[in-house]
Amino acid sequence: MSALSQQPYFLRALYEWCVDSGHTPYLTVRVDKQTRVPQAFVKDGQIVLNVGPSAVRNIHMDNDWVTFSARFGGMSHSIEIPVGNVVAIYARETGEGMAFEHLAQPEVADDTPQDMLSDSQEDDQAKPPQPPKGKPQLKVVK
Amino acid sequence: MSALSQQPYFLRALYEWCVDSGHTPYLTVRVDKQTRVPQAFVKDGQIVLNVGPSAVRNIHMDNDWVTFSARFGGMSHSIEIPVGNVVAIYARETGEGMAFEHLAQPEVADDTPQDMLSDSQEDDQAKPPQPPKGKPQLKVVK
Repeated sequence: MSALSQQPYFLRALYEWCVDSGHTPYLTVRVDKQTRVPQAFVKDGQIVLNVGPSAVRNIHMDNDWVTFSARFGGMSHSIEIPVGNVVAIYARETGEGMAFEHLAQPEVADDTPQDMLSDSQEDDQAKPPQPPKGKPQLKVVK
Repeated sequence: MSALSQQPYFLRALYEWCVDSGHTPYLTVRVDKQTRVPQAFVKDGQIVLNVGPSAVRNIHMDNDWVTFSARFGGMSHSIEIPVGNVVAIYARETGEGMAFEHLAQPEVADDTPQDMLSDSQEDDQAKPPQPPKGKPQLKVVK
């Protein structure tokens, strides 16, 4: 049997660690044709997503896909992300987490529509991600 | 809430990755007064343990302890290891895994009894651990 990628195992581990620690897990995702995310929040071919329990519903992370529902601009969206497109997971409050280096080169989506959504105060995802308050402590997995 | 150690989360993740990959997970453990392991297999203050599903029973890994039962020298032993004493976890077949560097300094147990056990062919743990067949690929977590 050939070895599986360690990435989804680390992803689930750090998600649980973040939540158990009372921190807010954020994902940085490389957007391409495989990802299903609201294009209006894509910047330079990437999107940053709050995946904490208070921001998403029905989150599921298997060895191939990260899927969940979340509100953007007041509308609920079904998000689908191949695990290989997750560039990093980190705690918003401290910056601790892990980067997956071999996937970190953004692929700019030239056909990004910019007309979908507007900001909303009741929106967990529409706020621009805040920089980590602490020293970033991402570990790199190649 | 203060952040929890990431170590037990990585430990569980890599254990699952090893087993799902069809590999054999091995632990390197720093032995001290907190660990409950057969002293006859301790060398230079450390013990290497096969923790694969075919070698152990009732393995449990929470945020504080790794516990399981295993046979050494034909006798069943209850093993208890504080998570902080786990120096590394790796796949025997490939050497892939993770080292926990801040814990890697062995503490030599001067009072190690050497009179307990003898080898046994039916014994999963009594065989000396084989060096990894592939290139070691341990990642360091500080």
